[in-house]
Amino acid sequence: MSPPLWIAAWALLLHGCAAGRAPQAPSTRNDIRDCSADPPYLPPTATNTTARLAVLRDILRTHGVHAYIVPSTDAHMSEYISERDARLGWLTGFTGSAGTAVVTRDKAALWTDSRYWTQAERELDCNWELQRTTSIESIGMWILKVVPAEGNVSLDPFLFSIDTWNSYSRALHGSSRTLLPLETNLVDQGWGDQRPPPSSSEIYSLPAEFTGSSWQEKVAGIRQRMEQHVRRPTAVLLSGLEETAWLFNLRGDDIPYNPVFYSYTLLTDTTISLFVEQSRLSVQARQSLRSGCPGPLCVELQEYGQVSAHLRRYAQGNVTVWLGTEYTTYGLYAIIPQEKLLEESYSPVMMAKAVKNAHEQEMLRAAHVRDAVAVIQYLLWLENTVPQGQVDEFSGAQRIDAFRWAQEHSRGPSFESISASGLNAALAHYSPSNGSSRTLSAREMYLFDTGGQYLDGTTDITRTVHWGEPTPLQKEAYTRVLMGNIDLSRLVFPSNTAGRTVESFARRALWDVGLNYGHGTGHGIGNFLSVHEWPVGFQSNNVPLEAGMFTSIEPGYYQDGEFGIRIEDVALVVEAQTEHQSGEKPFLTFEVVSLVPYDRNLIDLSLLSPEQIRYLNSYYERIRAHVGPELRRQRLEAAYVWLQESTEPFPVSSAGTAGTAAGLLALASLLSVLLSGLGA
Amino acid sequence: MSPPLWIAAWALLLHGCAAGRAPQAPSTRNDIRDCSADPPYLPPTATNTTARLAVLRDILRTHGVHAYIVPSTDAHMSEYISERDARLGWLTGFTGSAGTAVVTRDKAALWTDSRYWTQAERELDCNWELQRTTSIESIGMWILKVVPAEGNVSLDPFLFSIDTWNSYSRALHGSSRTLLPLETNLVDQGWGDQRPPPSSSEIYSLPAEFTGSSWQEKVAGIRQRMEQHVRRPTAVLLSGLEETAWLFNLRGDDIPYNPVFYSYTLLTDTTISLFVEQSRLSVQARQSLRSGCPGPLCVELQEYGQVSAHLRRYAQGNVTVWLGTEYTTYGLYAIIPQEKLLEESYSPVMMAKAVKNAHEQEMLRAAHVRDAVAVIQYLLWLENTVPQGQVDEFSGAQRIDAFRWAQEHSRGPSFESISASGLNAALAHYSPSNGSSRTLSAREMYLFDTGGQYLDGTTDITRTVHWGEPTPLQKEAYTRVLMGNIDLSRLVFPSNTAGRTVESFARRALWDVGLNYGHGTGHGIGNFLSVHEWPVGFQSNNVPLEAGMFTSIEPGYYQDGEFGIRIEDVALVVEAQTEHQSGEKPFLTFEVVSLVPYDRNLIDLSLLSPEQIRYLNSYYERIRAHVGPELRRQRLEAAYVWLQESTEPFPVSSAGTAGTAAGLLALASLLSVLLSGLGA
Repeated sequence: MSPPLWIAAWALLLHGCAAGRAPQAPSTRNDIRDCSADPPYLPPTATNTTARLAVLRDILRTHGVHAYIVPSTDAHMSEYISERDARLGWLTGFTGSAGTAVVTRDKAALWTDSRYWTQAERELDCNWELQRTTSIESIGMWILKVVPAEGNVSLDPFLFSIDTWNSYSRALHGSSRTLLPLETNLVDQGWGDQRPPPSSSEIYSLPAEFTGSSWQEKVAGIRQRMEQHVRRPTAVLLSGLEETAWLFNLRGDDIPYNPVFYSYTLLTDTTISLFVEQSRLSVQARQSLRSGCPGPLCVELQEYGQVSAHLRRYAQGNVTVWLGTEYTTYGLYAIIPQEKLLEESYSPVMMAKAVKNAHEQEMLRAAHVRDAVAVIQYLLWLENTVPQGQVDEFSGAQRIDAFRWAQEHSRGPSFESISASGLNAALAHYSPSNGSSRTLSAREMYLFDTGGQYLDGTTDITRTVHWGEPTPLQKEAYTRVLMGNIDLSRLVFPSNTAGRTVESFARRALWDVGLNYGHGTGHGIGNFLSVHEWPVGFQSNNVPLEAGMFTSIEPGYYQDGEFGIRIEDVALVVEAQTEHQSGEKPFLTFEVVSLVPYDRNLIDLSLLSPEQIRYLNSYYERIRAHVGPELRRQRLEAAYVWLQESTEPFPVSSAGTAGTAAGLLALASLLSVLLSGLGA
Repeated sequence: MSPPLWIAAWALLLHGCAAGRAPQAPSTRNDIRDCSADPPYLPPTATNTTARLAVLRDILRTHGVHAYIVPSTDAHMSEYISERDARLGWLTGFTGSAGTAVVTRDKAALWTDSRYWTQAERELDCNWELQRTTSIESIGMWILKVVPAEGNVSLDPFLFSIDTWNSYSRALHGSSRTLLPLETNLVDQGWGDQRPPPSSSEIYSLPAEFTGSSWQEKVAGIRQRMEQHVRRPTAVLLSGLEETAWLFNLRGDDIPYNPVFYSYTLLTDTTISLFVEQSRLSVQARQSLRSGCPGPLCVELQEYGQVSAHLRRYAQGNVTVWLGTEYTTYGLYAIIPQEKLLEESYSPVMMAKAVKNAHEQEMLRAAHVRDAVAVIQYLLWLENTVPQGQVDEFSGAQRIDAFRWAQEHSRGPSFESISASGLNAALAHYSPSNGSSRTLSAREMYLFDTGGQYLDGTTDITRTVHWGEPTPLQKEAYTRVLMGNIDLSRLVFPSNTAGRTVESFARRALWDVGLNYGHGTGHGIGNFLSVHEWPVGFQSNNVPLEAGMFTSIEPGYYQDGEFGIRIEDVALVVEAQTEHQSGEKPFLTFEVVSLVPYDRNLIDLSLLSPEQIRYLNSYYERIRAHVGPELRRQRLEAAYVWLQESTEPFPVSSAGTAGTAAGLLALASLLSVLLSGLGA
């Protein structure tokens, strides 16, 4: 799956590749605004923000602020946010997942990337300028133009990463405008009682069978990392919601698709402080956390809002606080004096969570077997119903969600299902909505990128299918995407290799004929946590690959206005068996744990090498061995038959050696003629 | 070729891989020092530094300094340095190319990487601790241990990069020790009149036929980049010696193997200041530089030592100075107020120089044809003389240097020739010396990594050969190194791809069987300039590949204590012909311009794919077409015959399809028997 946070690079690439092809607004369209018309034209999808802006501007004046910057994220740098944190959406009407708004006393502008330009023109009213870029340099230059010298440019420091804060600081440096952090959020003041209340649902302990180790073991492990670190930190500060959820084996539902809850943790060498709405903890959860009290394994429960004050007090001592800069806001970071900081990109909890232990690996494998059942049921259902023209993208998405819900331990989808037919699949980030949904057809390709949350694991898989006659380009592109998926999946590489140095193997088959895709090649994934779990993956800010990590592998190809292809599997990094071994550690390779066959109708076998076909056949054998019995157990006979047919081994001889094999055949038949002529 | 600057990553990797295998000092060895013996044992290769240290310590006291840091580079961040800049060598006796010394009032220590540990034990006396690491964190911790609180830690800011300075600053931050920059160099004070004088040889203009464009055109191009930059810089500051040499089409010989001269340039929108020892300029050079005076294309000649004062004055105005941080010292950098700086990793001159124009490409191609003649002559000479046991590594190196000198436009080797037989080739950085040189033998592999300076181009090539019976591992490893070289050379990839994302293609064939190499895969190269020309290459700090760039491609394999393999070619990035094209720009691939065949004796053809063999055959065709006529022109008939034999096409059918081909053959012969039996 390929949404917000990690798609930023994708958007940039696409933008780079397709410059000039940006969706422009012809005046005849009625789905987008036209602010140059008289009177201005607004589509029904636009939000009237005049009153909201007036309220916010009054508040700006009260605080002596000349420009206020509003981001799209929350105080935990979450990829997905709750309704309560959708400040950008409330203020602007724009509902895309990434953007930045700046409001001055008489102007308002929104910056977003190319994925969202059309959507923004549909949702913004004419109070807003749309800026078709996301560079902070550009935001800074706009601010310098509209804010008078000596003016105050303000923002909520608890909603900005350290990096982003520094970029704004650089952009305004020496300009005589002041970058003014305000701890009270001005949008929240304007939003007032219309702002959704905080979640009050229960925060619960995961049953022991669904955890890799007890929270006490995890805490001990982190404390060991602290002791072993050369800087000898006295505490670890956790801001990422997954970090606290993973550490204490707790889950909640504060954020759609992500079973996490609002919280911070300060884990010191002798104490544990969990900042959370205490009343929401289940009795069991509270008992578990308090079972070691008093003592170093006693969790002190503190109010969520107390984290800053607590940290400020703690930082007065002779301490060193270890934190991951990628998930810490500038607001929290700035509380700690520089010399008491131990900064790394990711906290030790993120690093520990990234390497799954044997039980976590088993759970993720098991979740993928049940997930494969749901996906196979969906593929079979599509085969039977698409030809009747009764399925559209939206009803399809509902159907796959329903198949997943029916599986054991299911907790629903792990992200909003991407279900895209024909040209819609060429949009990197398409999700259908009820009412504007394309009907699936045997004349078009169909791409679905979906995943599930299960108590034992999180899944994410993309398959692309065609039920009719694909064009030669569709078949070639699909086959080359598949070759890329295979080439990366079967790669053998040294321990500690960075993902970014091997992801091109997923592209080479496309590159060979001048094709490519504009997004990343994969991301980490959790055990009943985030579908995009950093820091594992193939991008430049991902950490080196180690045995026990899980990552998606998802090359694709997108033909603007025509079709889109993506083939995505989740794979576990495992030790490889090699004849030799350079270095101290075994070499690594991938074990693909997604277990759903590819569309035979779209594979041009003549492009594959014998090694690729052999790999494919052995993968299909594993699918049969693992998913077949589960289908039978669930008494899904039709799906079982479908699976057997779909995983028939491919003939190896038809690859590469085509010419020689043909020669062999011709000779053999000539021989048989001769032999029969001889009466042999 | 794979020495100092860019080998840092190599050393780290090797260290990572071979931890624990560091050469230890058994007390029975007499080639290294033994400071625990009584009296301490020093080999004859060690230098007595007691007097030098005493002098330096007196100077330290005079300046109120408690520790002084001495680096291995010069004021231009050069990879190679002149004798006059070999401060580290004079002070310590250690002659390796990378290291850092710290001297306090009663201690002295040297930090260097694993390539140099044994060499350091041979060259240091017992005044010195050897620290087997190069991390600045470790140097900082040592300093904190031995320097009292409130002490001064000093260094010459004109010998440290901005990055390195910042690292020391961080390491001492909050420690109550002061990092004190001293513009007068304390080692130079101690060295006194024993220090070699500055070079006085002539600085000359390259003849027009050997330049890609006039210096006036180059200056105009850089000024255009300044105008087009969003920050509108008013000046570009050049510290790298190659930068000034390239910009003005001037050359000198201040540094071994590198035809450059000590200089700085400040190019503003209206003026040009060249800081250089004026009396050294040839009449022609001076005329060329002054031909546009007065005016914006007039070069004002300033004394080399005036650069700081001039820059300080310039920086007082309303200016913005553009510089590349990789080649600028902290000393110069700190002169410019932060808000007047435009910092990028590489200056616009480095970026312009990296992309060769059509004439520069032609020159580099032509230099490689003549260079191939020298290398082929050497290979033939080795074949004839090695069996008699009369060649050793040192005399071999002399011989290849001589073959190069005999070629037109030759200006000698482009680096110290690496000539390594048997186990010596397993050392990444081996160069033979007269007296300690291994005899070449038909029973061992031999690796030579050499290059030439020609007026039209710089070359760099590595071939590995075996004149007898290689072991199965040698043959397999050589073939897989070759496969890696081929796979990267024939790769098709999108424009603007970073080298680091594709360099693994040079490793995969090795990885497949658990082998690898611990160094980078290639580096840029100049037109009669540096053999390691940044910022082109495959490492993480290299810039994206563009058509017109040249880079080496040099995978290898090293078996500790046994043998070493490297196959290095120089390749030009060119546009590829692809069936499709994603994005706006054509895809790219490489054209290998090194034109010397590989050792057939070491190739296991059965490992190669048909595509690899076809590539090899077409490369050999190009060698014949380009080098054959040149050999004839030079009347080198024996070499011509050798070339024809060595470039015979390989049979494609013997690869991959072995099984099928064998079947075909068997059938065909059966058929012929039958036919002859029939009297056909």
